[in-house]
Amino acid sequence: MRDRRPFKSEAEFISWILRQAGRNAPRQWTGLSLGIGDDAALVRVPAGPELILTSDLSIEGVHFTAALHPPESVGHRALARSLSDIAAMGGTPRYALISLAISPCQSRTWLKGFFGGLFALARRFRVALIGGDTSLFDGPCTIDAIVAGEVRRGHAVRRSGARPGDLIYVSGMLGMSALGLRTLQQRSKSRKTQTKLPNSAERAALRAHLFPGPQCVLGQFISRRRLASAMMDLSDGLSLDLRRLCEASGVGATIFAGHLPAPPVADPSDALALALHGGEDYQLLFTVPKPGRSKVPNRFARTPLHCIGEIQATRAVTLVTPSGKPQPFEPGGYDHFARRTQPDR
Amino acid sequence: MRDRRPFKSEAEFISWILRQAGRNAPRQWTGLSLGIGDDAALVRVPAGPELILTSDLSIEGVHFTAALHPPESVGHRALARSLSDIAAMGGTPRYALISLAISPCQSRTWLKGFFGGLFALARRFRVALIGGDTSLFDGPCTIDAIVAGEVRRGHAVRRSGARPGDLIYVSGMLGMSALGLRTLQQRSKSRKTQTKLPNSAERAALRAHLFPGPQCVLGQFISRRRLASAMMDLSDGLSLDLRRLCEASGVGATIFAGHLPAPPVADPSDALALALHGGEDYQLLFTVPKPGRSKVPNRFARTPLHCIGEIQATRAVTLVTPSGKPQPFEPGGYDHFARRTQPDR
Repeated sequence: MRDRRPFKSEAEFISWILRQAGRNAPRQWTGLSLGIGDDAALVRVPAGPELILTSDLSIEGVHFTAALHPPESVGHRALARSLSDIAAMGGTPRYALISLAISPCQSRTWLKGFFGGLFALARRFRVALIGGDTSLFDGPCTIDAIVAGEVRRGHAVRRSGARPGDLIYVSGMLGMSALGLRTLQQRSKSRKTQTKLPNSAERAALRAHLFPGPQCVLGQFISRRRLASAMMDLSDGLSLDLRRLCEASGVGATIFAGHLPAPPVADPSDALALALHGGEDYQLLFTVPKPGRSKVPNRFARTPLHCIGEIQATRAVTLVTPSGKPQPFEPGGYDHFARRTQPDR
Repeated sequence: MRDRRPFKSEAEFISWILRQAGRNAPRQWTGLSLGIGDDAALVRVPAGPELILTSDLSIEGVHFTAALHPPESVGHRALARSLSDIAAMGGTPRYALISLAISPCQSRTWLKGFFGGLFALARRFRVALIGGDTSLFDGPCTIDAIVAGEVRRGHAVRRSGARPGDLIYVSGMLGMSALGLRTLQQRSKSRKTQTKLPNSAERAALRAHLFPGPQCVLGQFISRRRLASAMMDLSDGLSLDLRRLCEASGVGATIFAGHLPAPPVADPSDALALALHGGEDYQLLFTVPKPGRSKVPNRFARTPLHCIGEIQATRAVTLVTPSGKPQPFEPGGYDHFARRTQPDR
């Protein structure tokens, strides 16, 4: 039975939230001087590392929908977005603050699921929830996940370091989250599925979309070994994110369609489109100077690492088709606003 | 003329925001390795101090209204809420991240005013805007202001340190922001003003509400000299916030109505109610062990410091009226949700 009693006041909402946080959070965290409940959180930062700070909004109707995303997934994804930013710098996430604005009628069952998903991911990465803010309002559920992490001084990997000749790598499979979203949409509309997927691939795609795993450990490996000249996470799709990396570095790129780790769908052009433009994979995109290529393993833990192209001096981004034909490569990545107005895209 | 072109895409909105940020922000900030534009911000933290982290939501219809608050005030107040949390710990604010969710139809003129107000306050406290997130959505304008600050190790002042016998102090005047809000509401309704205020008092009240000054320098003074056993900022009104400080410290308090720095209104009971229950003053509430009272100045810079009562061992909070009569003291402070449903309160 869903607990649908509305929150009578901000105070009731806050004390309910604090109880949830208290129930879920481990008692002891290294370096935490003072957690939730005072004016602000207080943490001891070891001398040496640089501090990484990031915040990411997750909004109902923009980043998730109540119809498609179970609350556990909403909580997981909200935090995963920020953890992935820390991964993209090669850092280790340490602390999270969650700012949460909801309608007074948001069900408590939903909120319990939300915090359950969020805390499960936080525990996996030993991230402590140390603060945030809450508000009741007449609007779509809005979450801001703030994460503070650390990275050894001088070891953070930026977007701007790619140089002509560097090889371009991605971790994991591309387009799996977009495929998972499509599967969810098809299921919810009870339409005959257009894309035939074997069950295990369907499960993998749904998991990639609903519970993406931020690549923090891989990011730390790359940063510690100084493997990459540039790195970012794939949140808006390879075509858009690669262009951003190229712009930040003042370079261009050639990508080989045949080398892309595309999702397991029957139609090759569909697979290619998903791999190029599907968003929210939260995999890492990084560039490696050629002399370092032998140090990049084919696989890190269970995640394959694929070389998909090469950085060019000219600013253009070119896609070489499987038949060897180069063609210009337009960003068609994930745009939240575009998705909002064209929900079936 | 107001620029009302809607943002066509998230990408257009983001690049517009980045231009605003670039125009407003000073070029050089101590310790900033990498600002807006990469996956996350990167800062060098000096060895020694503890890190303070806080986030505060400001939502249209809850914390401000388009009708009453000019955009410069919305930007100022959004950041001031978080700076005040840092002040309440005795810390120095360093970095801010702003997460901003707005409707695509939000006017650019409004946004320019918003960032103008926010950046003016940031410059005053030498706080660098280093990141954040943006989203277009169908909801009320929602801002999450995240501030990272620092405080000398072991010098942060918590809510939980008040002991029986400690004297209770407040900075500045109480109830001025609530009086300013009332003045704004009366003006906007073109009703005959019920509260006759001299012009300078009206200006001071409006300023206290629209452009509150976080007491960071005073907080640092109190923390550096180790004057206070407990401290917090007054965001929700003395009656509610004092109860929170007492609960955190496991104590009670006696407050003397005649000692409260009440706002200049004709009706004494109105003045007392404003001082006790008016929210958003962003002044400091702190407790001082009696042997330290001589070290507390009557005035810090231009801010008066008033001793308003004493911490008690019994948990109750008591108000002693000007006639010397003790009476129980119920929290009647500012509750965002109450204000939302009773906008004229």
